[in-house]
Amino acid sequence: MKIKTAITNFKQDKEFIRGQDLEELIKNKSFVESIFLILKGELPSDNETKMMNALFTAAIDHGPGTASAQTARITVSAKNSMHTSLAAGILAMGDRHGSAIEGAAKFFQENFDCDDVESLVKDLKEKKIRIPGYGHPFLEYDNRVDVLFEVAKETGFYGKHSELAEKVRDVLNSVSSKKLPLNVDGVMGAIISDMGFDWKLGKGFFIIARVPGLVAHIYEEIVDDVGVRRMDQGDIEYKGK
Amino acid sequence: MKIKTAITNFKQDKEFIRGQDLEELIKNKSFVESIFLILKGELPSDNETKMMNALFTAAIDHGPGTASAQTARITVSAKNSMHTSLAAGILAMGDRHGSAIEGAAKFFQENFDCDDVESLVKDLKEKKIRIPGYGHPFLEYDNRVDVLFEVAKETGFYGKHSELAEKVRDVLNSVSSKKLPLNVDGVMGAIISDMGFDWKLGKGFFIIARVPGLVAHIYEEIVDDVGVRRMDQGDIEYKGK
Amino acid sequence: MKIKTAITNFKQDKEFIRGQDLEELIKNKSFVESIFLILKGELPSDNETKMMNALFTAAIDHGPGTASAQTARITVSAKNSMHTSLAAGILAMGDRHGSAIEGAAKFFQENFDCDDVESLVKDLKEKKIRIPGYGHPFLEYDNRVDVLFEVAKETGFYGKHSELAEKVRDVLNSVSSKKLPLNVDGVMGAIISDMGFDWKLGKGFFIIARVPGLVAHIYEEIVDDVGVRRMDQGDIEYKGK
Amino acid sequence: MKIKTAITNFKQDKEFIRGQDLEELIKNKSFVESIFLILKGELPSDNETKMMNALFTAAIDHGPGTASAQTARITVSAKNSMHTSLAAGILAMGDRHGSAIEGAAKFFQENFDCDDVESLVKDLKEKKIRIPGYGHPFLEYDNRVDVLFEVAKETGFYGKHSELAEKVRDVLNSVSSKKLPLNVDGVMGAIISDMGFDWKLGKGFFIIARVPGLVAHIYEEIVDDVGVRRMDQGDIEYKGK
Repeated sequence: MKIKTAITNFKQDKEFIRGQDLEELIKNKSFVESIFLILKGELPSDNETKMMNALFTAAIDHGPGTASAQTARITVSAKNSMHTSLAAGILAMGDRHGSAIEGAAKFFQENFDCDDVESLVKDLKEKKIRIPGYGHPFLEYDNRVDVLFEVAKETGFYGKHSELAEKVRDVLNSVSSKKLPLNVDGVMGAIISDMGFDWKLGKGFFIIARVPGLVAHIYEEIVDDVGVRRMDQGDIEYKGK
Repeated sequence: MKIKTAITNFKQDKEFIRGQDLEELIKNKSFVESIFLILKGELPSDNETKMMNALFTAAIDHGPGTASAQTARITVSAKNSMHTSLAAGILAMGDRHGSAIEGAAKFFQENFDCDDVESLVKDLKEKKIRIPGYGHPFLEYDNRVDVLFEVAKETGFYGKHSELAEKVRDVLNSVSSKKLPLNVDGVMGAIISDMGFDWKLGKGFFIIARVPGLVAHIYEEIVDDVGVRRMDQGDIEYKGK
Repeated sequence: MKIKTAITNFKQDKEFIRGQDLEELIKNKSFVESIFLILKGELPSDNETKMMNALFTAAIDHGPGTASAQTARITVSAKNSMHTSLAAGILAMGDRHGSAIEGAAKFFQENFDCDDVESLVKDLKEKKIRIPGYGHPFLEYDNRVDVLFEVAKETGFYGKHSELAEKVRDVLNSVSSKKLPLNVDGVMGAIISDMGFDWKLGKGFFIIARVPGLVAHIYEEIVDDVGVRRMDQGDIEYKGK
Repeated sequence: MKIKTAITNFKQDKEFIRGQDLEELIKNKSFVESIFLILKGELPSDNETKMMNALFTAAIDHGPGTASAQTARITVSAKNSMHTSLAAGILAMGDRHGSAIEGAAKFFQENFDCDDVESLVKDLKEKKIRIPGYGHPFLEYDNRVDVLFEVAKETGFYGKHSELAEKVRDVLNSVSSKKLPLNVDGVMGAIISDMGFDWKLGKGFFIIARVPGLVAHIYEEIVDDVGVRRMDQGDIEYKGK
């Protein structure tokens, strides 16, 4: 196996990330600036850094009830290590959990220059194709959306993808009987698109943001140690072979 | 399954991380400040933030040849999703890869008040117990160590655990024939100890730091798409059943 | 979380798999008969048992060079446990490794009554849609295919899906310049279809078959213990940021 | 990366497992015989085959409430693939779930020639070291134990490790206030020891046995599709930061 890479290089005991001396990064740059660098190949402006900080913070945790927090906590409760439990948490991030950032960014990047959003949305609704990034399992309204757009406007990253995201929400709510707010995944998908990131990095953004939350859940489970989490037999119903 | 948690709470559509309003965090705090908050239960000082940024940046990537980068790249090359490939990368972080932060922190926290380091080290050497955080597979000298201690001195986190780390290195090198530098895992283990973090969070620190690097490797493999990475048959030797 | 299940039930300290007393299964049935039972809800006939044995055996291993064997061996070489390393191996089973059973079974089940296979295949070729289950990375000809069809004919499971599989191969090779043999995934997809299994179980068949092979690879790596498998620095080429 | 292996070899388009022609295995041997071969390097006798079938069948499933079934079902409920969900299930097999086979086998192999079991057990009890393979979370008595020993006696694999397992149980129950039956993990650990398997393969035995059960649970969740499994907010208690 041979690998060609543009990410990290070593020269005479020195390490370079995307051409930048790692020692300088450690001394002079924040972690989020280095994340931006490693994902995009260049150091960020102050506005880019501010926006990235807001995006990652917005998704840092969403309580112990999510699929990823549950699998992580069950796994560590069976006496597993931090990294094994964290991987179990990440595996739960399927198409129904944490994936809408990527799906929404893909949709916005493919349709940002659409001049008839109403027809586009109605057409998809007719074909029963769900647009990712709208609706929430238990929140009526997600405050993180407003705050992220506020920061996006301040930093100059409220652009055509974000506009499209809001237009789509308006059309969706005019044609749907149930309330479909733009959710935090949708707004993140719109803003990373306005920052020029490839939608294929969408899930990566979510995972970078959520890993510290999962580490906290796993650590809490280690410290509190309530024993292996089995289901109550009473919660299991046998329905015949 | 019931869970008691101190991490995240919801009140009337508002989310709180360790008691802090998430909206305020998004607007006013950096991602690293929020990571500190979620792991430690309180917001960091400026010095704590600076030190955390340096620690995470130092471990952001170490090239495509590490066990975790390899498993992540092989997994995505077999056409897997970002999160599945990332989990495969994290699974490779066993006792021989990325674990020495935790092992070193545990050692420093258990021995920080040892008054005869020389005997301690010699005794372990005799019992053939390896102290984690020393030595490197291919670098003679790891520049990241000096830089991290420099930042630790500036921010006030070069304390008794860091001192012990250097003393242990000196004794090790006086009794060992091969050079055993303090490596980046060792210095990170010492500094998180001087910052007051439980050693049980050591592996968590490493994973938070390295996930962006793994995301970059997986994304590069997706974009370059060289096909599924199988071993060359010539690299496989059959040694008899 | 409440779960309704038809798989396993407990009554007064007795366990039942799909309604069958587990004690009786242990005493009187083979493991493969119990696998059939748990997947299909009924005990197999002798012919079904024979066919299942052949299918699982055919996929038990394919050497250390596959994506799954590599990730499993790298992971355990970094000092991980058996189950963590095995999970890493399984994660590498993406769309390009071990997935063609399911893809082929889906294709055969959707097209088993197609009366113009030639047009179907040519049409897909024109649209550049690859039919799963044909071609092999390094074998010109896969002997396992003939043997599996031989057993299928003996046991009465060479039916319309298997016939379709062979017809498709013939058309493919008449229109394609490179040789496209039916591979072991393709023939397994055809036979499980002729046995009446849902294609959604196709990947499950592959994993059940391959897990013992992966266990053997991980165990070999534990016993031989050559140290953590890093890439040779000489195999890494830096191509510019 | 170069690998030396004794497991699988290719010669002129033919595949050999531990020196046996795979075609012959497919035609003439059962899956369990091939599993024995790949793990032990030789084909089993009829008694070995019978014993292996009983062992694997005994652990094929234990209901949807185990840690592994839960993580597998939660993961697939978030719309993940079969292999990703299965890996999540396997990750939950930590020291408190499915590990006692290995732990018990290790204990029996290290102490099979102990001539004072009573002192050994009492000594460990005093040091608060738990012997793996005894006790059960919700069954008072595990019928699988008797049945497995019955088969072991029939096939000649009730040997000194199994005898030790029963002696240890008797001593444990004479000194402990709560009932500590030999559980299915313990008896499996004893029997694989009497069959001559290295205890390091113990977890591998459990995983091979349980994978079909997990595949059945994941498939049931795919077919029933109840949506992503989040915790009920009412089951989460906030205990202060």
